[in-house]
Amino acid sequence: MKVNGVPYRSIFLDEDGWSVRVVDQTALPHEFRVSRLTDVEGAARAITEMTVRGAPLIGATAAYGLALALREDAGDASLNRARDLLQSTRPTAVNLHWALERVDTRVSPLPEPERATEAYREAAAIADEDVDRNHRIGEHGLRLLLDLAARAPGRPVEILTHCNAGWLATVDWGTATAPIYLAHDAGVAVHVWVDETRPRNQGAALTAWELAEHGVPHTVVVDNAGGHLMQRGRVDVCLVGTDRTTATGDVANKVGTYLKALAAMDNDVPFYVAAPSSSIDWTLNGGQDIPIEERAGTEVARVRGRTDAGRVETVTVIPAGSPVANPAFDVTPARLVTGIITERGVAEASREALARLFPERATPRRAEATP
Amino acid sequence: MKVNGVPYRSIFLDEDGWSVRVVDQTALPHEFRVSRLTDVEGAARAITEMTVRGAPLIGATAAYGLALALREDAGDASLNRARDLLQSTRPTAVNLHWALERVDTRVSPLPEPERATEAYREAAAIADEDVDRNHRIGEHGLRLLLDLAARAPGRPVEILTHCNAGWLATVDWGTATAPIYLAHDAGVAVHVWVDETRPRNQGAALTAWELAEHGVPHTVVVDNAGGHLMQRGRVDVCLVGTDRTTATGDVANKVGTYLKALAAMDNDVPFYVAAPSSSIDWTLNGGQDIPIEERAGTEVARVRGRTDAGRVETVTVIPAGSPVANPAFDVTPARLVTGIITERGVAEASREALARLFPERATPRRAEATP
Repeated sequence: MKVNGVPYRSIFLDEDGWSVRVVDQTALPHEFRVSRLTDVEGAARAITEMTVRGAPLIGATAAYGLALALREDAGDASLNRARDLLQSTRPTAVNLHWALERVDTRVSPLPEPERATEAYREAAAIADEDVDRNHRIGEHGLRLLLDLAARAPGRPVEILTHCNAGWLATVDWGTATAPIYLAHDAGVAVHVWVDETRPRNQGAALTAWELAEHGVPHTVVVDNAGGHLMQRGRVDVCLVGTDRTTATGDVANKVGTYLKALAAMDNDVPFYVAAPSSSIDWTLNGGQDIPIEERAGTEVARVRGRTDAGRVETVTVIPAGSPVANPAFDVTPARLVTGIITERGVAEASREALARLFPERATPRRAEATP
Repeated sequence: MKVNGVPYRSIFLDEDGWSVRVVDQTALPHEFRVSRLTDVEGAARAITEMTVRGAPLIGATAAYGLALALREDAGDASLNRARDLLQSTRPTAVNLHWALERVDTRVSPLPEPERATEAYREAAAIADEDVDRNHRIGEHGLRLLLDLAARAPGRPVEILTHCNAGWLATVDWGTATAPIYLAHDAGVAVHVWVDETRPRNQGAALTAWELAEHGVPHTVVVDNAGGHLMQRGRVDVCLVGTDRTTATGDVANKVGTYLKALAAMDNDVPFYVAAPSSSIDWTLNGGQDIPIEERAGTEVARVRGRTDAGRVETVTVIPAGSPVANPAFDVTPARLVTGIITERGVAEASREALARLFPERATPRRAEATP
């Protein structure tokens, strides 16, 4: 999508043909900065420190990370070491595992001199496929927004979103934002309630920034406000992304998503999850099996922002010595999800419906106990 | 409660015998500062700018504000002007109206020379009664916590609270915190999950500070985390305050409370509201009638904290030019409330149960339509 009128992807190959450029998401919304990754350690650090974040983008970055490692040393030991390093960066996003597996499968059988080139090719394919997949999600989601628009003539469709499932979380378009961008570009009036998304403020810092750059009407609210907005009839639809969705339709996403899903259910507001098939973990049969990352308490205790003098400064917002806990995700059970928007269409949040859309991926339901 | 070992109330008369001292809650948790109010304008400003906040403390401050006005000019015009000024400071807290009415009723019939003294006496009575009332709430709530402790031997009772219904929100003890302080003092192991409570961070800034000063084990979490904690069985009870509760048991409290009540219901966690009778609005028959204050967007956009250099600084956390909305309260419907802890005991959140505890305050249910 566009930044200051210039089209960007969140990750792309540098003009040198081998180093990798990523939009530094820790600097937004105060500064637009593009970082350069030159080795696998840098790629791993970019994921851990959340220079890049968002499940699809993490996958693409990990794939390029393997390419960077193989460029230096294409041996099996180097490949395994790079894969382990990248795999250990974030525990929740399934795309990480999936992308590493995919590149590894491609390059392992090859003679060493061909591995790096093939890894770059596969990483580029992963990135391009992500863009295509998100655009398809956008088209399926657009139909839902058009339906809502038809029921709300003369006013914008009111959408609430949480965290950043925007183009910055993917390679382009975003997942939850793809239908919004397509609707806006098609002249459908939309207005987005942007949850701030503490502790890292990805809503206020990234989603609001994206929408502002693209000219989409939006309003930032604190995470606490969404329930009230739904009670007062000011939300037509909730639209969020996911870091990992189980084969049964339980949705792990940024912590706080579950609370919005409860409020949506309580107020008859449809709650949709944009989930590229790469974020569906077909091996999991329930949300209780999804590991939930506990991140550093400093993310809660410290807030980064711009001083009135224009300096970016970090301030501590809790009493010295008060302990902090920081679970990064929660699980929204399938029963609270109206539908899952995939690149192949919208499915009910159930094993059967997801398996119908992705028969080649779904594992067959375990046979009923036989006597 | 104690600050650095010294017992304090949140509001008290200065040694000069007429000016009013209040703990400046905008400076916490970074600095403990006591402000001096010398006229009604200062009292009104203290409420508007949230130097003082919390429904019971707002009531006491307003009462002292009338006393300050009458000290300068005890005429009817002065009284009415002061009352109008104070009444206009905050729209949601019912205690404000109630305290002004009570002082006015006392002083209006008196000759002018006696009015100021009587207003001071009445303000002091309002403050003392608040302390007594909160202590009673604490005793009733303590019984609930003892029940929970009996069911969780060998580990602390896990309590989640939102915003600050602590001693800083009242004159002393707090409402939601009174049972916690009494339990802790009685040697009952408790641990409090403190919601940060954006946008003004009253949980992280005030509740955590209070608990730390009193030595109560606690952990600060972002507002998004409570649902996840409840899903994982890490919360035994939610305990919050209220700014206004209807005669039917609908509870207006800091925005986000409703989301926690939904999560509590979804996870079979009891959800209790500590409500001194002064915060019950017997004229309201449903939460939809409670006016919800829209506060300035700058509260969302700007965050105050301490820099690493020790300076208190305010930083902007949203993109320049992104619009902001800031509803300050939401309404938790009675159906989500397990019980309302009043100074007379614990009531179900229903008109009948509240009226049984406060028969002299409750207005009779409207007669059924007669033919």
